[in-house]
Amino acid sequence: MSPALPKNIKIKNTRKSGVKIIRRIEEMVGVSKEYRKKNKTIGFVPTMGALHQGHLSLIRQARKDNDIVVVSIFVNPTQFGHKEDLKKYPRNLKKDARLCKQEGAEIIFYPDASQMYPANHRTYVTVEKLSDCLCGKSRPGHFKGVVTVVAKFFNIVNPDVAYFGQKDAQQAIIIKRAVADLNIPVEIKVMPIVRERDGLALSSRNVYLNKKERKDAVVLSQSLDMAKHLIKRKILDPRKIIKKMNELIRRKKTAKIDYISIVDLKNLEPIKRIREGCLITLAVRVGRTRLIDNIILKFKVKS
Amino acid sequence: MSPALPKNIKIKNTRKSGVKIIRRIEEMVGVSKEYRKKNKTIGFVPTMGALHQGHLSLIRQARKDNDIVVVSIFVNPTQFGHKEDLKKYPRNLKKDARLCKQEGAEIIFYPDASQMYPANHRTYVTVEKLSDCLCGKSRPGHFKGVVTVVAKFFNIVNPDVAYFGQKDAQQAIIIKRAVADLNIPVEIKVMPIVRERDGLALSSRNVYLNKKERKDAVVLSQSLDMAKHLIKRKILDPRKIIKKMNELIRRKKTAKIDYISIVDLKNLEPIKRIREGCLITLAVRVGRTRLIDNIILKFKVKS
Repeated sequence: MSPALPKNIKIKNTRKSGVKIIRRIEEMVGVSKEYRKKNKTIGFVPTMGALHQGHLSLIRQARKDNDIVVVSIFVNPTQFGHKEDLKKYPRNLKKDARLCKQEGAEIIFYPDASQMYPANHRTYVTVEKLSDCLCGKSRPGHFKGVVTVVAKFFNIVNPDVAYFGQKDAQQAIIIKRAVADLNIPVEIKVMPIVRERDGLALSSRNVYLNKKERKDAVVLSQSLDMAKHLIKRKILDPRKIIKKMNELIRRKKTAKIDYISIVDLKNLEPIKRIREGCLITLAVRVGRTRLIDNIILKFKVKS
Repeated sequence: MSPALPKNIKIKNTRKSGVKIIRRIEEMVGVSKEYRKKNKTIGFVPTMGALHQGHLSLIRQARKDNDIVVVSIFVNPTQFGHKEDLKKYPRNLKKDARLCKQEGAEIIFYPDASQMYPANHRTYVTVEKLSDCLCGKSRPGHFKGVVTVVAKFFNIVNPDVAYFGQKDAQQAIIIKRAVADLNIPVEIKVMPIVRERDGLALSSRNVYLNKKERKDAVVLSQSLDMAKHLIKRKILDPRKIIKKMNELIRRKKTAKIDYISIVDLKNLEPIKRIREGCLITLAVRVGRTRLIDNIILKFKVKS
């Protein structure tokens, strides 16, 4: 049926690292089909590589939940803007493979861009409205690229469950929406943000920060802590909280705010009064590096 | 795992007609899963109902190729423009069910629009460029609606093979492109146009035609026959052929040409010289009814 599959696919770890690296789409399709035939469940962690503890927490959860863990490593060109960091985005397959092995993943799916996007590629998946606000405003086309590549991966890897990080909150919300809207038979699990000791959310882009910027970058999580604190003190007007966060961040000379927003977790629209389950989210350029962070308000708000 | 499935799904024909009508998405997902577990192959024919011999030829082919045949009947609102015929589009489930039974289909998937597109639906699949020309020009958004609903159906029904009619040539080309681009594991088969004795391509919309219009409507297929004839006489300049077709059609007072185009079968771009495998395609409004027709040039062109 459909795409021609290589014959006699054998599922075994052929690499020294103990994790099999698959580069061909058809091979990945075939291997997943074999696992499914054997009633193995597949957990899938899509990444752009440069793996850190945030990614590893996803792989660990996938390992816990499933028979087979597939990690994709693909720096997806369609989610980068023209002036963004596609070229300089950190890449280190050897180290990533070691980490995947360490966490017990079976397979790294590592396709190249020419395979994922042949010259005649024309199809995109878009989630309207949710993709235009927050990060979508300063990164037009970004989420279109993300959702398209995730849809492709879901068809290629055919996982039972896919794992995403809460750090990319808008991404997780958009992907959940796309999965529901297109009836994609994959469960989406979103795992908590992993942070440095001082609070900075882990990101592959943190390596871009120089010493001064790295120190200043902690202001993102600090501003979120402050917001939580204010809310506990019953300040429930989002504008007041955003104003305070704004003031705190602007004290850092390397920081330039892209947005600070307090929104509904489903439709990403700004809310008028703080309530349980809202999303406080921000993007700040520290030096030339764009960082994001967020919290979901988990406690009951007493007014 | 992902969407909750109804327990204890039993696959049997519960309707007197011998074809089971499934209205709930989750039930269709569950039934398909059961078939897949039993290694049954599923052939899928997506339709908007008002079945005619064109549809039946697809169902027959599906019957020939697969263990199980699923026909969807869904008048998809997202592929109709505001001023188009969504409301008056012919609907006749009883007759359609009888025809499906007659052709040996196992299942009619018959969801309603509120299930397919809940209020918070935001996700669309678009095939860029290919969707903007020909019918896409006078029906903006049409193919976005088509590809989105087909992507949804593919995830719900999970077929091995899906069947489309060559009459909707642009639709078939766009769907093939989307399937390849998104790595959707479904084989697409496109079946020949079925025609009335006088040459008119079968369409559910032919019922809109009054007697005079019905008579005039034959001019679409006549103009294609003429084009073939001209090409056999070595007239290989598309402009000349289109001019002649135009003249022929304009003789009918009820006819108003939307487009006549001779294009490359892959990228739908106008070609400069007739060649084997090109698509000659046209849309004509006959009275208030928009009709389409086309041929693919199958013979070698000798110059």
